[in-house]
Amino acid sequence: MHRVKVRVVEDALDANNTIARANRDDFDRNGVTVVNLMSAPGAGKTTLLERALGGLSVRAGVLEGDVQGSLDADRLSALHIPVTQLNTDNGFGGDCHLDANMVRTALPDLPLAEIDLLVVENVGNLVCPAEFRIGEDAKAMVCSVTEGEDKPLKYPLMFRTCELVVVNKIDLLEHLDFDLDKFLYNLDAVNPGVATMLLSARTGEGVDAFRSWLGGVAVREDSAARAAAGA
Amino acid sequence: MHRVKVRVVEDALDANNTIARANRDDFDRNGVTVVNLMSAPGAGKTTLLERALGGLSVRAGVLEGDVQGSLDADRLSALHIPVTQLNTDNGFGGDCHLDANMVRTALPDLPLAEIDLLVVENVGNLVCPAEFRIGEDAKAMVCSVTEGEDKPLKYPLMFRTCELVVVNKIDLLEHLDFDLDKFLYNLDAVNPGVATMLLSARTGEGVDAFRSWLGGVAVREDSAARAAAGA
Repeated sequence: MHRVKVRVVEDALDANNTIARANRDDFDRNGVTVVNLMSAPGAGKTTLLERALGGLSVRAGVLEGDVQGSLDADRLSALHIPVTQLNTDNGFGGDCHLDANMVRTALPDLPLAEIDLLVVENVGNLVCPAEFRIGEDAKAMVCSVTEGEDKPLKYPLMFRTCELVVVNKIDLLEHLDFDLDKFLYNLDAVNPGVATMLLSARTGEGVDAFRSWLGGVAVREDSAARAAAGA
Repeated sequence: MHRVKVRVVEDALDANNTIARANRDDFDRNGVTVVNLMSAPGAGKTTLLERALGGLSVRAGVLEGDVQGSLDADRLSALHIPVTQLNTDNGFGGDCHLDANMVRTALPDLPLAEIDLLVVENVGNLVCPAEFRIGEDAKAMVCSVTEGEDKPLKYPLMFRTCELVVVNKIDLLEHLDFDLDKFLYNLDAVNPGVATMLLSARTGEGVDAFRSWLGGVAVREDSAARAAAGA
C-alpha cells in the first residue's frame, strides 16, 4: 500500500517537473527571472512585496497564488506593476499550493515581454508548496518570528529547498519569547549555510537587503542565460 | 480535464469519509469524544494545550500530527497525559494534513479505555486539514492575531468548518496593526455566529474558557451518545 502511494506521488511529481521545465523554457525565452516566494499564512509576504517592489532596479511583476479571492493582488496593484491572480479553489476547499500546470495556465495572462522579474507569491503553507516546482529560478521563504524557533525542524523540506530565508517581524522580538539564536541553529541543522535576512516588512527595517537580493537574482539569472546562449 | 480532477477528488473524499465513520464508531464505542484542533503553523496550538489540558474535568489524551519529529509531543508529555505521535512524512516532504486512514493506523496506539477526550493536534496548515474528516465530534481552530485580519476570507473552508475559532496571542495586540473588529467582521462573513474566544496561551489570559469548552464538548457528546443508545 505504501509502495503504491510512493509510486503515485513519484509519477505526479515527475509530471509536474516536466511542465515546470516547459514553464522555465518560456520564462528564459522571454528573459524573465522567476522567484517562488513561500511562507506560512500571515508571515508577511505581501507586506514585504509592497515595501520591496517599489524602487526595484528591474521591471517586476507578480503572480499571486491564493485559494480564493484577490485581496493580496488588490493590495499590490497599488504599486502600478503587473499583478496576475491565480486561484486554486476547485470547489472542495482549494489546492494548498501552486503547481507547474496552474502556473502554465496563467502564462497567457502574464506580460512576460514587459518584465524582467516575476515574483510568484505562493499559497500560504509550509508543506506542499516546497514539493512542487513551477519553473522558478530561485525559491525564497518568509518566516515570522511569531511562529516559533522550531519551524525549520517541523517543516524541513520547505526550509531546505530555499536559497534565502527571510526572518520577518523582528520589530516584535522584544515582546516575544522567541530565541533567534535557537531558530538560526535549527535552520542551520536542516539547511547549513543558507542565506538569511532579518527584517520588518511593517517598519521597513532591513527591507533594502531583500530588494537588493531580488535585483541580484534577476541579474545573476540573466547573466547565466546569456552565458548559456553564447556557449 | 477539470471534471476528471473533480471526480478523483470526490472519490478520495468519499473513501476518507467512510474510514472517518469507522473511526467515529470506534471512538463512540469507547466513550471518547474527539476534537480536531487545527491552525496555521505557529499559531499556538501546543502552547494552548500545555495551558489548558492540566486541570481538565475529564481524562484527556492527545494525538499529535506532524510532518516530522515529535517536538510538540515531547512538550505535552510533561503534562503526564497519554500523547501519541503521528508523522505524515512519506519521503517527499510529507502530507500536509491528517486524514481518516492515518488516524485509523494510530488507533491501536491510543489508550481509548483510559480517556474521555482525545484532542487531535492536526498539521499546521489552513487548507487541507479542513477537507478531511478524521472521525471527530468537533472541529476547532486557533488563529493568531499576528496572521492578519484577512485570513477568514483567504481560507474560508477552514474558518467555516469549525464550531469554535480561538483568537490567540492577544497579548501582542497593542504592538500590531491588527484590527480585531475587522477580523471578526470577516469571520462572520464566512461563518455567521460561530463561537469565538480571545485569549493568550502565553500569558494564560482567557485560557480557562477554552478549558471549559473542551470539558463541555466531552459532556455534550457523551450525553448525545447515551441518548442515542437509549432511544
